[in-house]
Amino acid sequence: MKLAIDAMGGDHAPEAIVKGAVEAADSIEGLEITLIGDESRIKPFLKGQSNLSIIHTTEVITADDEPVRAVRRKKNASMVLMANEVKEGRADGCISAGNTGALMSAGLFLVGRMKGVERPALSPTLPTEDGKGFLMLDVGANVDAKPDHLLQYAVIGSIYAENVRNIDEPRVGLLNVGTEEGKGNDLTKKAFRLMQEAPINFVGNVEARDLMSGVADVVVTDGFTGNVTLKTIEGTAMTMFSMIKQTFMTNFKTKIAAGLAKNDLKKLKDQLDYSEYGGAGLFGLSAPVIKAHGSSNERAVLNAIRQACQMVEQDVTMTISTTLEEMEQKEDES
Amino acid sequence: MKLAIDAMGGDHAPEAIVKGAVEAADSIEGLEITLIGDESRIKPFLKGQSNLSIIHTTEVITADDEPVRAVRRKKNASMVLMANEVKEGRADGCISAGNTGALMSAGLFLVGRMKGVERPALSPTLPTEDGKGFLMLDVGANVDAKPDHLLQYAVIGSIYAENVRNIDEPRVGLLNVGTEEGKGNDLTKKAFRLMQEAPINFVGNVEARDLMSGVADVVVTDGFTGNVTLKTIEGTAMTMFSMIKQTFMTNFKTKIAAGLAKNDLKKLKDQLDYSEYGGAGLFGLSAPVIKAHGSSNERAVLNAIRQACQMVEQDVTMTISTTLEEMEQKEDES
Repeated sequence: MKLAIDAMGGDHAPEAIVKGAVEAADSIEGLEITLIGDESRIKPFLKGQSNLSIIHTTEVITADDEPVRAVRRKKNASMVLMANEVKEGRADGCISAGNTGALMSAGLFLVGRMKGVERPALSPTLPTEDGKGFLMLDVGANVDAKPDHLLQYAVIGSIYAENVRNIDEPRVGLLNVGTEEGKGNDLTKKAFRLMQEAPINFVGNVEARDLMSGVADVVVTDGFTGNVTLKTIEGTAMTMFSMIKQTFMTNFKTKIAAGLAKNDLKKLKDQLDYSEYGGAGLFGLSAPVIKAHGSSNERAVLNAIRQACQMVEQDVTMTISTTLEEMEQKEDES
Repeated sequence: MKLAIDAMGGDHAPEAIVKGAVEAADSIEGLEITLIGDESRIKPFLKGQSNLSIIHTTEVITADDEPVRAVRRKKNASMVLMANEVKEGRADGCISAGNTGALMSAGLFLVGRMKGVERPALSPTLPTEDGKGFLMLDVGANVDAKPDHLLQYAVIGSIYAENVRNIDEPRVGLLNVGTEEGKGNDLTKKAFRLMQEAPINFVGNVEARDLMSGVADVVVTDGFTGNVTLKTIEGTAMTMFSMIKQTFMTNFKTKIAAGLAKNDLKKLKDQLDYSEYGGAGLFGLSAPVIKAHGSSNERAVLNAIRQACQMVEQDVTMTISTTLEEMEQKEDES
């Protein structure tokens, strides 16, 4: 199994990326890694692993680059060369913590769509109170989704949750403004009916207020709503941590309390850090493409690599493709 | 100034509603209140105010009632009789903490739309870190919004923020998946262009992660996205409070910390309680209709009454109507 990794993407690149890759190369059997990036900045963190090689390039796509243009013009950027390894069949999957939009473009242009998938979906696993997390798709790859797209997301998410997250009969929910059947906008009403017929464990509509209680293992929504939901969770959590911090600075008593509870509150913050759950999959492409969180540390990179490995091992791409084809055939017959 | 109040709606009705109304009747000059509901359950909380009267009825619309049907069939429900007071010109505005959908129906059928407004919007003020709050509209009245609707929301929200929340040149933002111009789905791209031309202080696209930092005073979005955003904030805050509680129960040290910081953490919870900011306005109707939060206590009811009074006093409905008319004329001329 061979993975291509963009060594230059993310806030802590290349150090965190390379260190995570080194740990993966040491601990995951049968794994070969190709790191793409500035050799002189990568080498200091290597430990002489024979299953780790470098493709040298100094060009990078930055967070400020306009995604589509950057992928088209910066032909030697680490991210582009990474996707190219997959395209040319020299890697089974790839990982980047860089510019999300650019990764989606590189995925589409170079790795290519899977047969039967109209629009890929970006899909992170988000935190729940019980620590199990839920998969949400789409969070922004496709902001003008159609009912058919949501149906495909439901199937893709279910297969991923079962094969990579090892959840038996994953509960698939449709994000909506109410739980009753018939609720929603035009898109969700139509998607609801399609999802009822799909070969998944569809649990119906779910409400945003129940997401973090773990109301479903897979939550399906259009890329616009998903993106806003993801960022609302992030923003609310961030604001609350900031307010808690202020609260603990209020007076002498609260400052003592802060000292006593500090380590446990830190754990709480970690629980909500969704890079713990691995990166966001860019599902619907013909090979696993993983977007690691921009702030990924070494551990998050390792998690993303493990995730990509499991996708490759379980042949998730093929299972999705076969399932969608069977659904299409069945529809043609009926 | 006369307000009609549904005494039977909400989790703590009629006690919290009546007590809030009594306090308002005592403290707001020139206010007359008509409470609608079960006289025998209202009277125990009255204190003999001469500016407070009762319309007796025992019929109520419950949280489980299907909104449109309930309003059509339960002709003597407290909420329906309340809206009828406005319709018949015997009240300048009305307030209910009951079934939101039913209140929207009662508002539409009985109070009626304002001239020039295609679809009313439900609009709460949500908490920000600095305690100022932001107005969001729509959070669910109109789940299949068109660009024109969002433009109207922008104008309505701006006028409300200026006249009722006393914000000078309120910053109006469009909720979107990125801050750059050109970002978004079909709806927001079109709405952006319309909002640029509107007589408001349009600050462009805003992202969900910045809402609680107070990135705008008025945030415009379609009812589907708004509803999901509102419930995501609620759910994330709820989950975090529950996790904080668990964290404080971890060990001896954290339990002591909890004891020390208890009162200040309680204050934090209050800061995030958006019933503090008054109820959600149902904007675009021909008179002020306020939805108080279902869990409203006496204080929240009083806040909602104050809000309705200010809307009446500032003649917000007329200002909105005139502004929208002027915009339409201008467009016809160009």
